[in-house]
Amino acid sequence: MATALMPQQYQDCIEACQDCAISCDACAEACLGEQDVMMMVDCIRLDRDCAKMCYMSVTFMASGSQFARQVCELCAKMCDACAEECEKHAAHMDHCRQCAEACRRCAEACRNMMSMAA
Amino acid sequence: MATALMPQQYQDCIEACQDCAISCDACAEACLGEQDVMMMVDCIRLDRDCAKMCYMSVTFMASGSQFARQVCELCAKMCDACAEECEKHAAHMDHCRQCAEACRRCAEACRNMMSMAA
Amino acid sequence: MATALMPQQYQDCIEACQDCAISCDACAEACLGEQDVMMMVDCIRLDRDCAKMCYMSVTFMASGSQFARQVCELCAKMCDACAEECEKHAAHMDHCRQCAEACRRCAEACRNMMSMAA
Amino acid sequence: MATALMPQQYQDCIEACQDCAISCDACAEACLGEQDVMMMVDCIRLDRDCAKMCYMSVTFMASGSQFARQVCELCAKMCDACAEECEKHAAHMDHCRQCAEACRRCAEACRNMMSMAA
Repeated sequence: MATALMPQQYQDCIEACQDCAISCDACAEACLGEQDVMMMVDCIRLDRDCAKMCYMSVTFMASGSQFARQVCELCAKMCDACAEECEKHAAHMDHCRQCAEACRRCAEACRNMMSMAA
Repeated sequence: MATALMPQQYQDCIEACQDCAISCDACAEACLGEQDVMMMVDCIRLDRDCAKMCYMSVTFMASGSQFARQVCELCAKMCDACAEECEKHAAHMDHCRQCAEACRRCAEACRNMMSMAA
Repeated sequence: MATALMPQQYQDCIEACQDCAISCDACAEACLGEQDVMMMVDCIRLDRDCAKMCYMSVTFMASGSQFARQVCELCAKMCDACAEECEKHAAHMDHCRQCAEACRRCAEACRNMMSMAA
Repeated sequence: MATALMPQQYQDCIEACQDCAISCDACAEACLGEQDVMMMVDCIRLDRDCAKMCYMSVTFMASGSQFARQVCELCAKMCDACAEECEKHAAHMDHCRQCAEACRRCAEACRNMMSMAA
């Protein structure tokens, strides 16, 4: 894996953000295919925001940016919000259940990353 | 892995693009830290383009976009160009060697994806 | 305007892509607020793709990338597709009418840019 | 302008972020073409970060995201940092002078946006 190039402390967080980004993109797309789309509009909005922020976090970590921690701090907040919304639908929709789990893992990984020494 | 949400045929390509994106970001950052930065400016430019295009490919596949194949087609071209440049420096710079390998794998994965039935 | 830094031939295309990107983002958001969201799902999908590709075109032109033309070529295709879908709703929805116009202008600007000498 | 679709309070900030994003991309590219690239590596890094964050701010505002203010808050910090670095080179390099000005305007626009009622 090319992640050997990464600062070691970023590796877990990068993987969690990568996973969360694609889960959010996929969840939004699945929501658009649901019969009752109207019920899913907030989920689609939060998936949209969270996916963008997760890709952003990955590229800031991979670039070794001095702002990586602050980007991940904001990412964690969007993950929390997206997880909370997805959990409302998790019992009936597998894409929301999986997305909520990916968001919770990502929020935790971002907070772990932030707590590490710079 | 949340990639269970992905169309199965995209999964390999998504992973190759994720890996290539962070390899390119990390290679560009490492190039900026080289003593002879001047020698690396084309590498930095191609890393920059290729990284952006790989993140783009991931989000188009993860969203199940009708344009995913065309995005991956262009991505493969940038991967080829970046690999070619990185290979010039691969003997002396580990970040370029790793990045070149990630780019070659990604170009191949993009072309495999494109060849699949829609 | 900082666009004085841009290669002159890119300036019109950059502005058209900037305008199209925000029109698509705004149209998608407005679609999510429509009573009959179900009718708008294809529009939301195309807005999503087209917005991403327009931001991409802007950054490739602004960076003077060797791939700027190829990125704009693909951008023009997404603009066409998004315009076509938005035009179906343009009579009743102002956000779709405005978005369709921005997409048509952007597709034309991308094609003008591509036809210029490198 | 399609910005008529935008919440009015975002319009100035969107324009400042658009301008800053392309100024940063263009400045980084110009830095890579300088004879003494080594002297510009921190500028290239900050241009890279600031450009990405500005595009991000634009898409969050254009989408009417609930996180637009928080994204712009972080954007303002990156603009400050990029401006400070570019100002070191502004006397001798026009791309840095223009970029510094775009960053200062953008930081101010982001802070104005944040202070508006939601």
